[in-house]
Amino acid sequence: MRSGEMAKLTQLIDNDVFRAYATYTTIVLLKMMLMSLITAYFRITRKAFVNPEDTASFGKGESAKKYLRTDPDVERVRRGHLNDLENIVPFLGIGLLYALSGPELSTALLHFRIFAGARIAHTFAYLIPLPQPGRGLSWAVGYAVTMSMAYKVLMTALYL
Amino acid sequence: MRSGEMAKLTQLIDNDVFRAYATYTTIVLLKMMLMSLITAYFRITRKAFVNPEDTASFGKGESAKKYLRTDPDVERVRRGHLNDLENIVPFLGIGLLYALSGPELSTALLHFRIFAGARIAHTFAYLIPLPQPGRGLSWAVGYAVTMSMAYKVLMTALYL
Amino acid sequence: MRSGEMAKLTQLIDNDVFRAYATYTTIVLLKMMLMSLITAYFRITRKAFVNPEDTASFGKGESAKKYLRTDPDVERVRRGHLNDLENIVPFLGIGLLYALSGPELSTALLHFRIFAGARIAHTFAYLIPLPQPGRGLSWAVGYAVTMSMAYKVLMTALYL
Repeated sequence: MRSGEMAKLTQLIDNDVFRAYATYTTIVLLKMMLMSLITAYFRITRKAFVNPEDTASFGKGESAKKYLRTDPDVERVRRGHLNDLENIVPFLGIGLLYALSGPELSTALLHFRIFAGARIAHTFAYLIPLPQPGRGLSWAVGYAVTMSMAYKVLMTALYL
Repeated sequence: MRSGEMAKLTQLIDNDVFRAYATYTTIVLLKMMLMSLITAYFRITRKAFVNPEDTASFGKGESAKKYLRTDPDVERVRRGHLNDLENIVPFLGIGLLYALSGPELSTALLHFRIFAGARIAHTFAYLIPLPQPGRGLSWAVGYAVTMSMAYKVLMTALYL
Repeated sequence: MRSGEMAKLTQLIDNDVFRAYATYTTIVLLKMMLMSLITAYFRITRKAFVNPEDTASFGKGESAKKYLRTDPDVERVRRGHLNDLENIVPFLGIGLLYALSGPELSTALLHFRIFAGARIAHTFAYLIPLPQPGRGLSWAVGYAVTMSMAYKVLMTALYL
Protein backbone atom coordinates (compact mmCIF):
# COMPACT_ATOMS: atom_id res chain seq x y z
CA MET A 1 0.00 0.00 0.00
CA ARG A 2 1.31 3.45 -0.88
CA SER A 3 2.28 5.70 1.98
CA GLY A 4 -0.04 8.49 2.98
CA GLU A 5 -3.16 6.86 1.58
CA MET A 6 -3.98 4.70 4.55
CA ALA A 7 -3.79 7.79 6.72
CA LYS A 8 -6.31 9.50 4.47
CA LEU A 9 -8.70 6.56 4.64
CA THR A 10 -8.29 6.35 8.40
CA GLN A 11 -9.18 10.03 8.54
CA LEU A 12 -12.44 9.31 6.75
CA ILE A 13 -13.40 6.63 9.27
CA ASP A 14 -12.21 8.99 12.05
CA ASN A 15 -14.65 11.71 11.02
CA ASP A 16 -17.41 11.67 13.65
CA VAL A 17 -20.34 11.95 11.23
CA PHE A 18 -18.88 9.17 9.09
CA ARG A 19 -18.26 7.01 12.17
CA ALA A 20 -21.90 7.49 13.22
CA TYR A 21 -23.03 6.52 9.72
CA ALA A 22 -20.77 3.44 9.83
CA THR A 23 -22.14 2.43 13.22
CA TYR A 24 -25.86 2.79 12.48
CA THR A 25 -25.59 1.35 8.98
CA THR A 26 -23.85 -1.73 10.37
CA ILE A 27 -26.54 -2.05 13.06
CA VAL A 28 -29.47 -1.92 10.62
CA LEU A 29 -27.73 -4.26 8.16
CA LEU A 30 -27.04 -6.77 10.96
CA LYS A 31 -30.70 -6.46 12.02
CA MET A 32 -31.71 -7.20 8.43
CA MET A 33 -29.37 -10.21 8.32
CA LEU A 34 -31.05 -11.49 11.50
CA MET A 35 -34.25 -11.95 9.46
CA SER A 36 -32.53 -14.80 7.57
CA LEU A 37 -31.91 -16.65 10.83
CA ILE A 38 -35.50 -16.06 12.02
CA THR A 39 -36.81 -17.36 8.68
CA ALA A 40 -34.64 -20.47 9.01
CA TYR A 41 -35.84 -20.95 12.61
CA PHE A 42 -39.52 -20.87 11.60
CA ARG A 43 -38.94 -23.05 8.52
CA ILE A 44 -37.35 -25.73 10.72
CA THR A 45 -39.75 -25.54 13.70
CA ARG A 46 -42.87 -25.24 11.46
CA LYS A 47 -41.45 -27.80 9.00
CA ALA A 48 -42.36 -25.56 6.05
CA PHE A 49 -39.86 -25.63 3.19
CA VAL A 50 -39.81 -24.53 -0.41
CA ASN A 51 -36.91 -26.51 -1.94
CA PRO A 52 -37.32 -30.31 -2.32
CA GLU A 53 -33.64 -30.84 -1.43
CA ASP A 54 -34.29 -29.19 1.98
CA THR A 55 -36.75 -31.90 3.01
CA ALA A 56 -34.57 -34.87 2.00
CA SER A 57 -33.64 -35.57 5.63
CA PHE A 58 -37.34 -36.19 6.42
CA GLY A 59 -37.43 -39.22 4.13
CA LYS A 60 -38.20 -39.85 0.49
CA GLY A 61 -41.25 -39.33 -1.70
CA GLU A 62 -44.64 -38.42 -0.21
CA SER A 63 -43.43 -38.40 3.41
CA ALA A 64 -41.05 -35.54 2.61
CA LYS A 65 -43.29 -33.80 0.08
CA LYS A 66 -45.81 -32.75 2.73
CA TYR A 67 -43.22 -30.38 4.19
CA LEU A 68 -43.10 -28.41 0.93
CA ARG A 69 -45.69 -25.89 2.03
CA THR A 70 -46.09 -22.27 3.06
CA ASP A 71 -46.52 -21.34 6.71
CA PRO A 72 -48.07 -18.04 7.90
CA ASP A 73 -45.22 -17.35 10.37
CA VAL A 74 -42.52 -18.03 7.77
CA GLU A 75 -44.29 -15.78 5.24
CA ARG A 76 -44.61 -13.03 7.85
CA VAL A 77 -40.87 -13.00 8.54
CA ARG A 78 -40.16 -13.02 4.81
CA ARG A 79 -42.40 -9.98 4.30
CA GLY A 80 -40.54 -8.22 7.10
CA HIS A 81 -37.24 -9.11 5.45
CA LEU A 82 -38.34 -7.74 2.07
CA ASN A 83 -39.63 -4.55 3.74
CA ASP A 84 -36.17 -4.17 5.30
CA LEU A 85 -34.54 -4.47 1.88
CA GLU A 86 -36.92 -1.91 0.39
CA ASN A 87 -36.17 0.62 3.16
CA ILE A 88 -32.59 -0.09 4.25
CA VAL A 89 -31.16 0.01 0.70
CA PRO A 90 -32.28 3.68 0.30
CA PHE A 91 -30.84 4.44 3.76
CA LEU A 92 -27.54 2.79 2.79
CA GLY A 93 -27.13 4.94 -0.33
CA ILE A 94 -28.76 8.22 0.68
CA GLY A 95 -27.26 7.99 4.21
CA LEU A 96 -23.73 7.66 2.80
CA LEU A 97 -24.19 10.70 0.56
CA TYR A 98 -25.79 12.58 3.46
CA ALA A 99 -22.81 11.77 5.73
CA LEU A 100 -20.50 13.19 3.02
CA SER A 101 -22.64 16.33 2.53
CA GLY A 102 -21.31 17.98 5.70
CA PRO A 103 -24.25 17.86 8.12
CA GLU A 104 -23.95 18.96 11.76
CA LEU A 105 -22.95 15.98 13.92
CA SER A 106 -25.97 16.38 16.23
CA THR A 107 -28.38 16.57 13.26
CA ALA A 108 -26.80 13.53 11.62
CA LEU A 109 -26.96 11.52 14.85
CA LEU A 110 -30.63 12.43 15.21
CA HIS A 111 -31.35 11.12 11.71
CA PHE A 112 -29.37 7.89 12.14
CA ARG A 113 -30.73 7.10 15.64
CA ILE A 114 -34.36 7.68 14.67
CA PHE A 115 -33.98 5.57 11.51
CA ALA A 116 -32.36 2.66 13.36
CA GLY A 117 -34.94 2.85 16.16
CA ALA A 118 -37.81 2.97 13.67
CA ARG A 119 -36.58 -0.10 11.77
CA ILE A 120 -36.08 -2.10 14.97
CA ALA A 121 -39.57 -1.06 16.11
CA HIS A 122 -40.91 -2.06 12.66
CA THR A 123 -39.49 -5.56 13.05
CA PHE A 124 -41.10 -6.02 16.48
CA ALA A 125 -44.39 -4.58 15.19
CA TYR A 126 -44.31 -7.03 12.27
CA LEU A 127 -43.28 -10.16 14.12
CA ILE A 128 -45.32 -9.89 17.35
CA PRO A 129 -47.55 -8.58 15.52
CA LEU A 130 -48.69 -5.29 17.06
CA PRO A 131 -52.09 -3.89 16.04
CA GLN A 132 -51.98 -1.15 13.42
CA PRO A 133 -50.96 1.65 13.16
CA GLY A 134 -47.87 0.36 15.04
CA ARG A 135 -46.16 -1.13 12.01
CA GLY A 136 -47.35 1.58 9.64
CA LEU A 137 -46.11 4.34 11.91
CA SER A 138 -42.65 2.83 12.45
CA TRP A 139 -42.36 2.35 8.67
CA ALA A 140 -43.39 5.98 8.03
CA VAL A 141 -40.85 7.36 10.52
CA GLY A 142 -37.95 5.56 8.80
CA TYR A 143 -39.29 6.68 5.42
CA ALA A 144 -39.50 10.33 6.53
CA VAL A 145 -35.93 10.28 7.92
CA THR A 146 -34.62 8.99 4.57
CA MET A 147 -36.58 11.71 2.72
CA SER A 148 -35.08 14.36 5.01
CA MET A 149 -31.55 13.11 4.29
CA ALA A 150 -32.31 13.00 0.54
CA TYR A 151 -33.42 16.65 0.72
CA LYS A 152 -30.10 17.63 2.34
CA VAL A 153 -28.12 15.68 -0.28
CA LEU A 154 -29.93 17.32 -3.20
CA MET A 155 -29.61 20.80 -1.62
CA THR A 156 -25.84 20.26 -1.19
CA ALA A 157 -24.84 18.27 -4.25
CA LEU A 158 -27.43 18.82 -6.98
CA TYR A 159 -25.72 18.42 -10.37
CA LEU A 160 -28.09 17.37 -13.13
CA MET B 1 -14.88 16.78 14.83
CA ARG B 2 -11.20 17.10 14.03
CA SER B 3 -10.14 20.11 12.01
CA GLY B 4 -9.33 19.63 8.34
CA GLU B 5 -11.39 16.51 7.92
CA MET B 6 -14.69 18.18 7.21
CA ALA B 7 -12.96 20.16 4.49
CA LYS B 8 -11.78 16.93 2.92
CA LEU B 9 -15.24 15.38 2.98
CA THR B 10 -16.73 18.56 1.57
CA GLN B 11 -14.20 18.31 -1.24
CA LEU B 12 -15.48 14.81 -2.08
CA ILE B 13 -19.07 16.05 -2.36
CA ASP B 14 -17.78 19.11 -4.29
CA ASN B 15 -16.21 16.94 -6.97
CA ASP B 16 -18.46 17.25 -10.03
CA VAL B 17 -18.54 13.54 -10.92
CA PHE B 18 -19.31 12.63 -7.32
CA ARG B 19 -22.01 15.31 -7.14
CA ALA B 20 -23.60 13.90 -10.29
CA TYR B 21 -23.49 10.39 -8.78
CA ALA B 22 -25.06 11.73 -5.57
CA THR B 23 -27.82 13.47 -7.50
CA TYR B 24 -28.83 10.60 -9.78
CA THR B 25 -28.48 7.95 -7.08
CA THR B 26 -30.77 9.97 -4.81
CA ILE B 27 -33.27 10.37 -7.68
CA VAL B 28 -33.46 6.65 -8.50
CA LEU B 29 -33.63 5.69 -4.80
CA LEU B 30 -36.47 8.19 -4.23
CA LYS B 31 -38.22 6.74 -7.30
CA MET B 32 -37.84 3.26 -5.80
CA MET B 33 -39.22 4.49 -2.47
CA LEU B 34 -42.23 5.85 -4.34
CA MET B 35 -43.18 2.23 -5.18
CA SER B 36 -44.00 1.69 -1.47
CA LEU B 37 -46.53 4.53 -1.57
CA ILE B 38 -48.06 3.25 -4.82
CA THR B 39 -48.36 -0.24 -3.32
CA ALA B 40 -50.08 1.21 -0.23
CA TYR B 41 -52.41 3.26 -2.46
CA PHE B 42 -53.51 0.18 -4.42
CA ARG B 43 -53.82 -1.98 -1.28
CA ILE B 44 -56.17 0.59 0.25
CA THR B 45 -58.24 1.44 -2.86
CA ARG B 46 -58.45 -2.23 -3.98
CA LYS B 47 -58.94 -3.41 -0.39
CA ALA B 48 -56.34 -6.16 -0.85
CA PHE B 49 -54.18 -6.84 2.19
CA VAL B 50 -51.83 -9.57 3.31
CA ASN B 51 -51.58 -9.06 7.10
CA PRO B 52 -54.70 -9.79 9.23
CA GLU B 53 -53.88 -6.83 11.51
CA ASP B 54 -54.16 -4.49 8.49
CA THR B 55 -57.84 -5.35 7.96
CA ALA B 56 -58.91 -4.93 11.60
CA SER B 57 -60.51 -1.54 10.86
CA PHE B 58 -62.92 -3.26 8.42
CA GLY B 59 -64.53 -5.26 11.26
CA LYS B 60 -63.91 -8.63 12.88
CA GLY B 61 -63.92 -12.21 11.66
CA GLU B 62 -65.24 -13.11 8.20
CA SER B 63 -66.15 -9.54 7.24
CA ALA B 64 -62.48 -8.53 7.50
CA LYS B 65 -61.05 -11.83 6.23
CA LYS B 66 -62.33 -11.27 2.70
CA TYR B 67 -59.86 -8.40 2.30
CA LEU B 68 -56.92 -10.78 2.79
CA ARG B 69 -56.44 -11.39 -0.90
CA THR B 70 -54.10 -10.65 -3.77
CA ASP B 71 -55.00 -8.03 -6.35
CA PRO B 72 -53.46 -7.89 -9.87
CA ASP B 73 -52.65 -4.17 -9.61
CA VAL B 74 -51.00 -4.54 -6.20
CA GLU B 75 -48.93 -7.49 -7.44
CA ARG B 76 -47.88 -5.53 -10.53
CA VAL B 77 -46.53 -2.64 -8.44
CA ARG B 78 -44.75 -5.12 -6.17
CA ARG B 79 -43.05 -6.74 -9.15
CA GLY B 80 -41.93 -3.31 -10.33
CA HIS B 81 -40.57 -2.59 -6.86
CA LEU B 82 -38.60 -5.85 -6.74
CA ASN B 83 -37.23 -5.19 -10.23
CA ASP B 84 -36.06 -1.78 -8.98
CA LEU B 85 -34.23 -3.46 -6.08
CA GLU B 86 -32.59 -5.98 -8.43
CA ASN B 87 -31.32 -3.22 -10.74
CA ILE B 88 -30.79 -0.17 -8.52
CA VAL B 89 -28.67 -2.05 -5.94
CA PRO B 90 -26.02 -2.86 -8.61
CA PHE B 91 -26.16 0.78 -9.79
CA LEU B 92 -25.69 1.99 -6.20
CA GLY B 93 -22.54 -0.09 -5.68
CA ILE B 94 -20.99 -0.13 -9.16
CA GLY B 95 -21.93 3.54 -9.74
CA LEU B 96 -20.11 4.61 -6.56
CA LEU B 97 -16.96 2.74 -7.57
CA TYR B 98 -17.28 4.12 -11.10
CA ALA B 99 -17.57 7.70 -9.77
CA LEU B 100 -14.34 7.09 -7.79
CA SER B 101 -12.51 5.55 -10.78
CA GLY B 102 -11.89 8.93 -12.41
CA PRO B 103 -14.21 8.99 -15.45
CA GLU B 104 -14.65 12.06 -17.64
CA LEU B 105 -17.47 14.23 -16.28
CA SER B 106 -19.36 14.17 -19.59
CA THR B 107 -19.07 10.36 -19.85
CA ALA B 108 -20.20 9.91 -16.25
CA LEU B 109 -23.18 12.23 -16.74
CA LEU B 110 -24.15 10.27 -19.85
CA HIS B 111 -24.15 7.00 -17.85
CA PHE B 112 -26.08 8.41 -14.88
CA ARG B 113 -28.68 10.25 -16.99
CA ILE B 114 -29.42 7.26 -19.24
CA PHE B 115 -29.70 4.93 -16.24
CA ALA B 116 -32.09 7.22 -14.37
CA GLY B 117 -34.16 7.81 -17.51
CA ALA B 118 -34.31 4.08 -18.25
CA ARG B 119 -35.51 3.21 -14.73
CA ILE B 120 -38.18 5.91 -14.79
CA ALA B 121 -39.30 4.68 -18.22
CA HIS B 122 -39.31 1.11 -16.86
CA THR B 123 -41.70 2.11 -14.07
CA PHE B 124 -44.12 3.76 -16.50
CA ALA B 125 -43.87 0.77 -18.86
CA TYR B 126 -44.65 -1.59 -15.98
CA LEU B 127 -47.50 0.34 -14.37
CA ILE B 128 -49.43 1.61 -17.42
CA PRO B 129 -48.59 -1.14 -18.76
CA LEU B 130 -47.05 -0.49 -22.15
CA PRO B 131 -46.97 -3.33 -24.71
CA GLN B 132 -43.66 -5.16 -24.96
CA PRO B 133 -40.83 -4.58 -25.79
CA GLY B 134 -41.30 -1.26 -23.95
CA ARG B 135 -40.58 -2.63 -20.51
CA GLY B 136 -37.94 -5.08 -21.71
CA LEU B 137 -36.07 -2.39 -23.61
CA SER B 138 -36.01 0.11 -20.73
CA TRP B 139 -34.78 -2.67 -18.45
CA ALA B 140 -32.03 -3.63 -20.93
CA VAL B 141 -30.80 -0.04 -21.29
CA GLY B 142 -30.32 0.34 -17.51
CA TYR B 143 -28.65 -3.08 -17.41
CA ALA B 144 -26.23 -2.14 -20.22
CA VAL B 145 -25.29 1.16 -18.54
CA THR B 146 -24.43 -0.71 -15.31
CA MET B 147 -22.33 -3.23 -17.28
CA SER B 148 -20.45 -0.37 -18.96
CA MET B 149 -19.65 1.20 -15.57
CA ALA B 150 -18.57 -2.21 -14.19
CA TYR B 151 -16.17 -2.57 -17.12
CA LYS B 152 -14.59 0.82 -16.33
CA VAL B 153 -14.28 -0.09 -12.63
CA LEU B 154 -12.59 -3.41 -13.37
CA MET B 155 -10.24 -1.80 -15.95
CA THR B 156 -9.22 0.85 -13.38
CA ALA B 157 -9.19 -1.01 -10.08
CA LEU B 158 -8.76 -4.74 -10.77
CA TYR B 159 -7.01 -6.33 -7.79
CA LEU B 160 -7.79 -10.02 -7.40
CA MET C 1 -13.69 19.86 -12.01
CA ARG C 2 -11.57 21.63 -9.40
CA SER C 3 -7.87 20.91 -9.46
CA GLY C 4 -6.45 18.58 -6.85
CA GLU C 5 -9.68 16.73 -6.21
CA MET C 6 -9.42 14.20 -8.99
CA ALA C 7 -6.00 13.27 -7.65
CA LYS C 8 -7.52 12.64 -4.24
CA LEU C 9 -10.26 10.45 -5.69
CA THR C 10 -7.76 8.59 -7.79
CA GLN C 11 -5.77 7.96 -4.62
CA LEU C 12 -8.82 6.34 -3.03
CA ILE C 13 -9.26 3.95 -5.95
CA ASP C 14 -5.46 3.41 -5.94
CA ASN C 15 -5.49 2.16 -2.35
CA ASP C 16 -4.98 -1.60 -2.53
CA VAL C 17 -7.65 -2.55 0.02
CA PHE C 18 -10.16 -0.26 -1.70
CA ARG C 19 -9.23 -1.66 -5.11
CA ALA C 20 -9.79 -5.19 -3.80
CA TYR C 21 -13.17 -4.12 -2.41
CA ALA C 22 -14.06 -2.51 -5.77
CA THR C 23 -13.06 -5.66 -7.65
CA TYR C 24 -14.91 -8.21 -5.53
CA THR C 25 -17.99 -6.02 -5.07
CA THR C 26 -18.24 -5.58 -8.84
CA ILE C 27 -17.85 -9.35 -9.31
CA VAL C 28 -20.62 -10.30 -6.87
CA LEU C 29 -22.94 -7.58 -8.22
CA LEU C 30 -22.37 -8.78 -11.79
CA LYS C 31 -23.06 -12.34 -10.61
CA MET C 32 -26.32 -11.10 -9.05
CA MET C 33 -27.25 -9.30 -12.27
CA LEU C 34 -26.69 -12.57 -14.14
CA MET C 35 -29.70 -14.00 -12.24
CA SER C 36 -31.97 -11.66 -14.24
CA LEU C 37 -30.72 -13.15 -17.50
CA ILE C 38 -31.12 -16.71 -16.19
CA THR C 39 -34.68 -15.91 -15.08
CA ALA C 40 -35.47 -14.50 -18.52
CA TYR C 41 -33.92 -17.58 -20.17
CA PHE C 42 -36.11 -19.97 -18.14
CA ARG C 43 -39.24 -17.82 -18.62
CA ILE C 44 -38.78 -17.96 -22.38
CA THR C 45 -37.75 -21.62 -22.72
CA ARG C 46 -40.38 -22.83 -20.18
CA LYS C 47 -42.97 -20.38 -21.54
CA ALA C 48 -43.89 -19.27 -18.02
CA PHE C 49 -44.72 -15.58 -17.68
CA VAL C 50 -46.38 -13.39 -15.09
CA ASN C 51 -47.35 -10.26 -17.06
CA PRO C 52 -50.13 -10.58 -19.67
CA GLU C 53 -48.31 -8.14 -21.98
CA ASP C 54 -45.33 -10.55 -22.07
CA THR C 55 -47.41 -13.29 -23.72
CA ALA C 56 -48.98 -11.08 -26.40
CA SER C 57 -46.62 -12.47 -29.07
CA PHE C 58 -48.08 -15.97 -28.48
CA GLY C 59 -51.49 -14.88 -29.73
CA LYS C 60 -54.62 -13.39 -28.17
CA GLY C 61 -57.05 -14.53 -25.48
CA GLU C 62 -56.96 -18.12 -24.18
CA SER C 63 -54.07 -19.24 -26.38
CA ALA C 64 -51.78 -16.70 -24.68
CA LYS C 65 -53.33 -16.96 -21.22
CA LYS C 66 -52.02 -20.49 -20.68
CA TYR C 67 -48.46 -19.12 -20.54
CA LEU C 68 -49.32 -17.02 -17.46
CA ARG C 69 -48.14 -19.65 -15.01
CA THR C 70 -45.39 -20.40 -12.53
CA ASP C 71 -42.63 -22.84 -13.39
CA PRO C 72 -40.47 -24.61 -10.78
CA ASP C 73 -37.20 -23.70 -12.54
CA VAL C 74 -38.15 -20.04 -12.89
CA GLU C 75 -39.16 -19.87 -9.22
CA ARG C 76 -35.88 -21.52 -8.20
CA VAL C 77 -33.80 -18.89 -10.01
CA ARG C 78 -35.95 -16.13 -8.49
CA ARG C 79 -35.35 -17.48 -4.99
CA GLY C 80 -31.61 -17.53 -5.69
CA HIS C 81 -31.82 -13.93 -6.90
CA LEU C 82 -33.67 -12.78 -3.77
CA ASN C 83 -31.15 -14.63 -1.57
CA ASP C 84 -28.39 -12.74 -3.41
CA LEU C 85 -30.09 -9.41 -2.64
CA GLU C 86 -30.50 -10.36 1.04
CA ASN C 87 -26.81 -11.23 1.37
CA ILE C 88 -24.98 -9.02 -1.14
CA VAL C 89 -26.62 -5.79 0.09
CA PRO C 90 -25.08 -6.26 3.59
CA PHE C 91 -21.72 -7.07 1.93
CA LEU C 92 -21.96 -3.92 -0.19
CA GLY C 93 -22.49 -1.65 2.83
CA ILE C 94 -20.47 -3.40 5.54
CA GLY C 95 -17.68 -4.25 3.08
CA LEU C 96 -17.28 -0.59 2.08
CA LEU C 97 -17.05 0.50 5.73
CA TYR C 98 -14.67 -2.39 6.42
CA ALA C 99 -12.42 -1.35 3.52
CA LEU C 100 -12.31 2.18 5.02
CA SER C 101 -11.58 0.90 8.55
CA GLY C 102 -7.92 0.20 7.78
CA PRO C 103 -7.67 -3.62 7.69
CA GLU C 104 -4.51 -5.43 6.67
CA LEU C 105 -4.51 -6.02 2.90
CA SER C 106 -4.06 -9.80 3.30
CA THR C 107 -6.92 -10.01 5.84
CA ALA C 108 -9.19 -7.93 3.64
CA LEU C 109 -8.40 -10.05 0.57
CA LEU C 110 -9.18 -13.18 2.57
CA HIS C 111 -12.61 -11.80 3.51
CA PHE C 112 -13.48 -10.61 0.00
CA ARG C 113 -12.27 -13.77 -1.75
CA ILE C 114 -14.12 -16.13 0.60
CA PHE C 115 -17.32 -14.09 0.32
CA ALA C 116 -17.24 -14.01 -3.48
CA GLY C 117 -16.39 -17.72 -3.65
CA ALA C 118 -19.19 -18.59 -1.22
CA ARG C 119 -21.81 -16.63 -3.18
CA ILE C 120 -20.75 -18.20 -6.48
CA ALA C 121 -20.87 -21.65 -4.83
CA HIS C 122 -24.32 -20.76 -3.42
CA THR C 123 -25.64 -20.02 -6.91
CA PHE C 124 -24.37 -23.34 -8.27
CA ALA C 125 -25.74 -25.19 -5.21
CA TYR C 126 -29.14 -23.54 -5.75
CA LEU C 127 -29.43 -23.96 -9.51
CA ILE C 128 -28.04 -27.48 -10.03
CA PRO C 129 -29.38 -28.14 -7.24
CA LEU C 130 -26.83 -29.81 -4.97
CA PRO C 131 -28.06 -31.89 -2.03
CA GLN C 132 -28.04 -30.12 1.32
CA PRO C 133 -26.04 -28.98 3.24
CA GLY C 134 -24.26 -27.66 0.11
CA ARG C 135 -26.44 -24.59 -0.30
CA GLY C 136 -26.81 -24.01 3.44
CA LEU C 137 -23.08 -24.19 4.00
CA SER C 138 -22.17 -21.80 1.20
CA TRP C 139 -24.80 -19.37 2.53
CA ALA C 140 -23.39 -19.65 6.08
CA VAL C 141 -19.82 -18.98 4.94
CA GLY C 142 -20.81 -15.72 3.21
CA TYR C 143 -22.89 -14.77 6.26
CA ALA C 144 -19.98 -15.40 8.64
CA VAL C 145 -17.56 -13.33 6.52
CA THR C 146 -19.98 -10.38 6.60
CA MET C 147 -20.36 -10.74 10.40
CA SER C 148 -16.56 -10.73 10.76
CA MET C 149 -16.28 -7.51 8.73
CA ALA C 150 -19.12 -5.94 10.76
CA TYR C 151 -17.22 -6.76 13.96
CA LYS C 152 -14.10 -4.96 12.64
CA VAL C 153 -16.17 -1.92 11.57
CA LEU C 154 -17.84 -1.61 14.98
CA MET C 155 -14.50 -2.08 16.80
CA THR C 156 -12.94 0.68 14.68
CA ALA C 157 -15.73 3.19 14.20
CA LEU C 158 -18.31 2.73 16.98
CA TYR C 159 -20.01 6.07 17.61
CA LEU C 160 -23.50 5.70 19.07
